[in-house]
Amino acid sequence: MSDDQRFGLARHVSLAEPLLLDGGATLGPVEIGYETYGRLNDDRSNAILICHALTGDQHVASAHPITGKPGWWARMVGAGQPIDPARHFIICANVLGSCMGSSGPPTIDPATGEPYAMRFPVITIRDMVRAQAMLIDHLGIGVLNAVVGGSMGGMQVLEWAATFPDRVRSAVIIASAARHSAQNIAFHEVGRQAIMADPRWRGGYYYADADPPASGLAVARMAAHITYLSESGLTEKFGRRLQARPDNASGVKSFGFDADFQVESYLRHQGISFVDRFDANSYLYITRAMDYFDLAEEHNGFLANAFRGTRTRFCLASFDSDWLYPTSEARLIVHALNAAGAAVSFVELSSAFGHDAFLLDVPELNRVVDGFLRAGEA
Amino acid sequence: MSDDQRFGLARHVSLAEPLLLDGGATLGPVEIGYETYGRLNDDRSNAILICHALTGDQHVASAHPITGKPGWWARMVGAGQPIDPARHFIICANVLGSCMGSSGPPTIDPATGEPYAMRFPVITIRDMVRAQAMLIDHLGIGVLNAVVGGSMGGMQVLEWAATFPDRVRSAVIIASAARHSAQNIAFHEVGRQAIMADPRWRGGYYYADADPPASGLAVARMAAHITYLSESGLTEKFGRRLQARPDNASGVKSFGFDADFQVESYLRHQGISFVDRFDANSYLYITRAMDYFDLAEEHNGFLANAFRGTRTRFCLASFDSDWLYPTSEARLIVHALNAAGAAVSFVELSSAFGHDAFLLDVPELNRVVDGFLRAGEA
Repeated sequence: MSDDQRFGLARHVSLAEPLLLDGGATLGPVEIGYETYGRLNDDRSNAILICHALTGDQHVASAHPITGKPGWWARMVGAGQPIDPARHFIICANVLGSCMGSSGPPTIDPATGEPYAMRFPVITIRDMVRAQAMLIDHLGIGVLNAVVGGSMGGMQVLEWAATFPDRVRSAVIIASAARHSAQNIAFHEVGRQAIMADPRWRGGYYYADADPPASGLAVARMAAHITYLSESGLTEKFGRRLQARPDNASGVKSFGFDADFQVESYLRHQGISFVDRFDANSYLYITRAMDYFDLAEEHNGFLANAFRGTRTRFCLASFDSDWLYPTSEARLIVHALNAAGAAVSFVELSSAFGHDAFLLDVPELNRVVDGFLRAGEA
Repeated sequence: MSDDQRFGLARHVSLAEPLLLDGGATLGPVEIGYETYGRLNDDRSNAILICHALTGDQHVASAHPITGKPGWWARMVGAGQPIDPARHFIICANVLGSCMGSSGPPTIDPATGEPYAMRFPVITIRDMVRAQAMLIDHLGIGVLNAVVGGSMGGMQVLEWAATFPDRVRSAVIIASAARHSAQNIAFHEVGRQAIMADPRWRGGYYYADADPPASGLAVARMAAHITYLSESGLTEKFGRRLQARPDNASGVKSFGFDADFQVESYLRHQGISFVDRFDANSYLYITRAMDYFDLAEEHNGFLANAFRGTRTRFCLASFDSDWLYPTSEARLIVHALNAAGAAVSFVELSSAFGHDAFLLDVPELNRVVDGFLRAGEA
């Protein structure tokens, strides 16, 4: 099976079968950029699908092709980690709407020979999951041992369990929610308006030259980054400490508008470095999909309906300092799973670093995921 | 005294004496736009200075000249209110750096005959207060019966008490803080970057034509507005309710990028309506002043030092859902005042509406302020 060209790093597939989207449009072919790690066992029972967050990608445990940085979840996926290529066949696919090889605004529309840009149809989290299911079919896998994700990845895991209950043995949902709150929507809307206010956005049709709306996208990223860290995390990391600069001995304010405070410098760096690896239109489409997400609404207003009769095992983890997807949102999911009679374990972990904690070094999170996966494989 | 041209609505004064700023620069003349309400009594003991917030102005209880809306604090200042022109001589001045008649970036620099724009010196909260003290001198008032303010207004009240302790009999600080946190700075920096990313900003020199960086300023305002409401306030006000539009029957998603959710529509309105009444450069300068504010730092790192030996009476109020200047920040001030042996009363009020609550209809706040002021006048 190691010669199977479907498996390995930096894979791409074009699936001809058209995908009917929640918005009513049809997308085809469906392009998917993905990677696999490890070896699919003979009874095809060791596959784990990792779902990435808003600006993530398929490079969960391999170097990013643009930035050269290590995989975004090498702390969770890799040799000796809870999700281990020595035991698991690991799949991670770029989500629909994104810009790393899966169908999204920058993809060439076969009907016109031009990038879709804003002609790309608006998608939902469920559409992303349906596209992933097409990939799993293509890989010849019926049932996934586990689907695992944090943040928007966790939303996809919930959709997997709700939409394909018989194909998910175990579901791990970290730092996530079953719906987007008014505040979540508000932050995304600020980011979208920042992009669309950039004259270089040009209604989304900016692919012909190398002049994308980088300024607007950087501002969007800066606003989002505030929500990824907690107030206490920002205080611990930066406080009111001043930036050391050639013309500004540490501890002296410049009385100007350069980045005086370290937190300003951090945000500017986050904004500027992001635009090299991400597409502004993709940011619009994926944030829209997240804002539309409300799993209860998809099931007659009752979240428990999403999980009736499920045999999937669930594991949820939240962080006490996460104000983007706080523990209260995880509890709503747990209560719904209880009402549906599902097997569920839940833990709130302690971290100073807010939402970002799921990507950081949190040994307790690894122990939780490891224990849950091993119990399901016993 | 009613014929005194210094008193009344829509006043303006140009004070020739140069003001030495914290940043080392000198500003002169100092222009101040202000209003007074009520009558200064014979022993000049009934003057109350109101300090406004970031985007506020001198029209505390009179119609705004651009928007035509009622004064921004008519709920607190007016006939039958805690601060009443029948009893008090009320002064409210546009802060230094702003754009409603006081010296700021849009003001003509006498040295060049052009607007200062980004040649305006960076200012501090203490500079704002020093300019106000010059106005109070000009009005012939020695001691203020009270200085009252919310949000950035509260910072000015703290500076008044620290810088001119003998001129402030009573100080009322609402929904404020003695320093700007890393998260506060982060939100302001996003706003500044949104303005400076707008190509129409042109380094700040945009006054020659009628084409200011309105898009960037609107995005800045949207980001700020998220911090003015609490998560619960946003949920109560908007939740995930959809916007009714001609092409979008209520409750149906458009699968597009127009404002589908009511919270999106609200934020866009806040952004768009703001740019008609506010200057983008002023927004840069005033947010900078707030970020620089750290009253403890100005007093060798000990907040209590700011109030040693004070005879001013203090009243502090915070709101339980305010996450911009949470109750914990008010407590730090109260502890410092206690350590300094000052007379202080403190109350945390309950409201669903976060930081904005100080501008809304909160009868309890009015009772607190009324009781405190009357006790000082007894």
